[in-house]
Amino acid sequence: MAAAPVWSVDPRTGKEREQVAEEATAEEIDAAVRAAHDARGSLTDRTVRAAFLRTAADRLESAREHLVEAADAETALGPTRLAAELAHTCYQLRAFADTVDEGAFLDVVIDHPDSTATPPVPDLRRYRVPLGVIAVYSASNFPFTFSVPGGDTASALAAGCPVVVKAHPGHPATSELVAALLRHAAAAHGIPEAVLGLVHGLDAGVALVRHPLIAGAGFTGSVRGGRLLFDAAAARPVPIPFHGELGSLNPVLVTEAAAEERAERIGTGLGGSMTLGVGQFCVKPGLVLVPEGAAGDRLLTSLTEAVSDTEAGVLLDHRTRDTFLTGVTERAQLPDVESPVTPGAGGEHTVAAGFLTVPAAHLATPDGDHDLLLSECFGPVTVVARYTDTAEATAVLSRLPGNLTATVHLSTAEAAGEGRGAEILAQLTPLAGRVLVDGWPTELAVAPAQHHGGPYPATTSTATSVGGTAIDRWLRPVAYQSTPEPLLPPELHDTNPLGLPRRIDGRLEHWEH
Amino acid sequence: MAAAPVWSVDPRTGKEREQVAEEATAEEIDAAVRAAHDARGSLTDRTVRAAFLRTAADRLESAREHLVEAADAETALGPTRLAAELAHTCYQLRAFADTVDEGAFLDVVIDHPDSTATPPVPDLRRYRVPLGVIAVYSASNFPFTFSVPGGDTASALAAGCPVVVKAHPGHPATSELVAALLRHAAAAHGIPEAVLGLVHGLDAGVALVRHPLIAGAGFTGSVRGGRLLFDAAAARPVPIPFHGELGSLNPVLVTEAAAEERAERIGTGLGGSMTLGVGQFCVKPGLVLVPEGAAGDRLLTSLTEAVSDTEAGVLLDHRTRDTFLTGVTERAQLPDVESPVTPGAGGEHTVAAGFLTVPAAHLATPDGDHDLLLSECFGPVTVVARYTDTAEATAVLSRLPGNLTATVHLSTAEAAGEGRGAEILAQLTPLAGRVLVDGWPTELAVAPAQHHGGPYPATTSTATSVGGTAIDRWLRPVAYQSTPEPLLPPELHDTNPLGLPRRIDGRLEHWEH
Repeated sequence: MAAAPVWSVDPRTGKEREQVAEEATAEEIDAAVRAAHDARGSLTDRTVRAAFLRTAADRLESAREHLVEAADAETALGPTRLAAELAHTCYQLRAFADTVDEGAFLDVVIDHPDSTATPPVPDLRRYRVPLGVIAVYSASNFPFTFSVPGGDTASALAAGCPVVVKAHPGHPATSELVAALLRHAAAAHGIPEAVLGLVHGLDAGVALVRHPLIAGAGFTGSVRGGRLLFDAAAARPVPIPFHGELGSLNPVLVTEAAAEERAERIGTGLGGSMTLGVGQFCVKPGLVLVPEGAAGDRLLTSLTEAVSDTEAGVLLDHRTRDTFLTGVTERAQLPDVESPVTPGAGGEHTVAAGFLTVPAAHLATPDGDHDLLLSECFGPVTVVARYTDTAEATAVLSRLPGNLTATVHLSTAEAAGEGRGAEILAQLTPLAGRVLVDGWPTELAVAPAQHHGGPYPATTSTATSVGGTAIDRWLRPVAYQSTPEPLLPPELHDTNPLGLPRRIDGRLEHWEH
Repeated sequence: MAAAPVWSVDPRTGKEREQVAEEATAEEIDAAVRAAHDARGSLTDRTVRAAFLRTAADRLESAREHLVEAADAETALGPTRLAAELAHTCYQLRAFADTVDEGAFLDVVIDHPDSTATPPVPDLRRYRVPLGVIAVYSASNFPFTFSVPGGDTASALAAGCPVVVKAHPGHPATSELVAALLRHAAAAHGIPEAVLGLVHGLDAGVALVRHPLIAGAGFTGSVRGGRLLFDAAAARPVPIPFHGELGSLNPVLVTEAAAEERAERIGTGLGGSMTLGVGQFCVKPGLVLVPEGAAGDRLLTSLTEAVSDTEAGVLLDHRTRDTFLTGVTERAQLPDVESPVTPGAGGEHTVAAGFLTVPAAHLATPDGDHDLLLSECFGPVTVVARYTDTAEATAVLSRLPGNLTATVHLSTAEAAGEGRGAEILAQLTPLAGRVLVDGWPTELAVAPAQHHGGPYPATTSTATSVGGTAIDRWLRPVAYQSTPEPLLPPELHDTNPLGLPRRIDGRLEHWEH
């Protein structure tokens, strides 16, 4: 049987552009994983790892024009957005190089012997070691930042783990180009190219997570695909950590006072955020609680203007387009749901942005039909639920599944601590991994304090896939007991030759408050 | 249908002592979890939490005589060992109170806005919040330290999470006594007693991990029981973290040079470690690689003496005894396996310690029958594999599943860095969460650098269940974006009113090297 071809497809026309590769066979997956595993020793040296990550960023930057063109041809995300995403990706690679240099992620803890303790404490020295080969599943909507050179790959390599990426079928050519650049960057530092494997194919993805030498997995994508792989990871004879970002509604609450204060600005801002990248952000605001009444009506008028002004856009591929059209049609047909701007088909290959409204009462208690509005609909659509009072808004929030983000728009007085501001923050915290005030969740920074994750289905673990602590996912602690210094790695020597932040005998060393 | 009674049984006679409780019904489990969930706000204040943990330690200490007597009657572990275990447990509760006071576990990270970054960084402030109600599954072999008041409960309460404990059927009366003391300690600080629930019954344990309001689970026990619960946790509509310690062989390698240098001391030490607590430690050395030849023979002679001198002991219960007797019989019958001291039945209720020997060649390559020797046999038995050369010993090590510990005994010269010492350390590191030189794995300290965990099946996650970082299991990060200070918790205020270690704008604050 011939191997299945992998085609690069132009979403603007639906036509095949070129055959990029073939779907990986079981033998090819095994070979990629084994080669990555054999190459793991080449990532032991932290200095080499950091240099590799920086060279990778340099190579991607040097190839910017070519990469942006290739990605645009496959995703239709547009050169401006893609150039910004690539810059973001390079920044992230360099930020992980800095994380590697600093070494706090090693979490060095040293206890000197104490025979007076109960029970006695022997010499104990702990740090964190790489897990092994990591499987990375690329997302469709960020061909750079959440794909081959994205946060999962960068953080795994930073941790010292080789990576085998399962390419997203939406941009196979870009994936191959980027993988080649990363491999060349590795080779420039004497690291075998096998440290970054790339495979194509749906079945290949499942086989990958089941491979005995795969020690962990990172995933960004749909609830259906992510749960399938999560289940496969958990069902292995030796289960592995599966860090998946699966789906998020990203609720937004606009208080009565905020709507009265600046309905127009909030409506316009919402229109911009929900249509950004043709609504194809995992942090798109998908459910917005807006008060009934005049102020809320003004907000909707501004939202209507902003969304009506949005040009029809091309989605990532035709399957995404079909799913979007089905999703908005099903939602729009529900009782009492209205479409001030109807989302749906634009031209033959495009879609038009829109939004739906529904009385919040339909969402405040279980209601078989309307609960569809509490699930993510990928693409340029949002649901505005109009609430009559605080209790109703609270009831809707309490029924939501886990989210990446939860946002509240407050009035100036509420933001200053008057009224229910703090209470609302406390209500939103259990719902999400990132809580925003007066902003939009699509503003996602790569920064040390970032947390891009949240209760299931936002994430299948408590970890983040963006920001410095994303490296934590690919490490495990090892403690050395009564081990003579000549046998210990330098990270655990008393003299601290590498200048690492440490905890010694229970206290953070060199930390003074 | 009448509820199933829960009996306290005397393992020294096999006779029922008293009926302690009834197995929990689905309604009772639901009530316990809901009450714990409703009580979660009472643990928000870190000062109150720390005080509660210290009072809990005080109350346990005050009741020492009574608790030791109760536990001995159900477990036959003996008053000396149990008093030491209780002291260890109280030390651990106080250590977690110190961890709560210090606050480093909150992992505070603050990024101030930077509009020049790509993409721009808004004000971002992250810390960690409690997961919710935690299910704790007690172990049979440590009625205090890995049971109701043990590391799982202490770390979950320290994190701010209420706990519902599933009592081990081996010591239900002790579990009830301890739970009552912990509840009184809670009440002394105005915390509802429901913050610590206790349920009995095997079915109750499964129902508990499936309850929608359970947010995580800690488990110490067998591979079979632990995997069943792990699978149930992963199969939930909303999967939860399951931190289980399931089983470990705890391999020990004795180098040729170490055997030549001090065969007798190693043999005697091994005899003491493998029979400690009648061999009922999860860190019991279960496979020992000893060189063929005269030095190895001397080691075995000393081991034989030490084990022969050990008195017959009572195991935790009759099911444990039956499993032990079956296990040693199956192993002893394998081809080329010898029993220099035959493990097996002592009196009607006791067992005699012993050990088996086997040529390491039988374990160095897959061999259907002998692979049984690579699985844990709970109780006072160990397997000594005699190796002919380094390659054979290495081959056996490479075939082992994950372990809590891996130990090597080196000669003085090897420990000083001559010969293969560092190479062996590197070989042992992938096998375990704790690596020991010239010690015995049963020496388990409660200390900041401790790591009690390891690759599966030692643990189902990368976390530890002992030591300060055990608290990490019950927390998840939340980032606040552009949130005005009046609405933020004090932990995230710029002025750092609580004196917490923090990372500010990418740098560890107040850290100077």
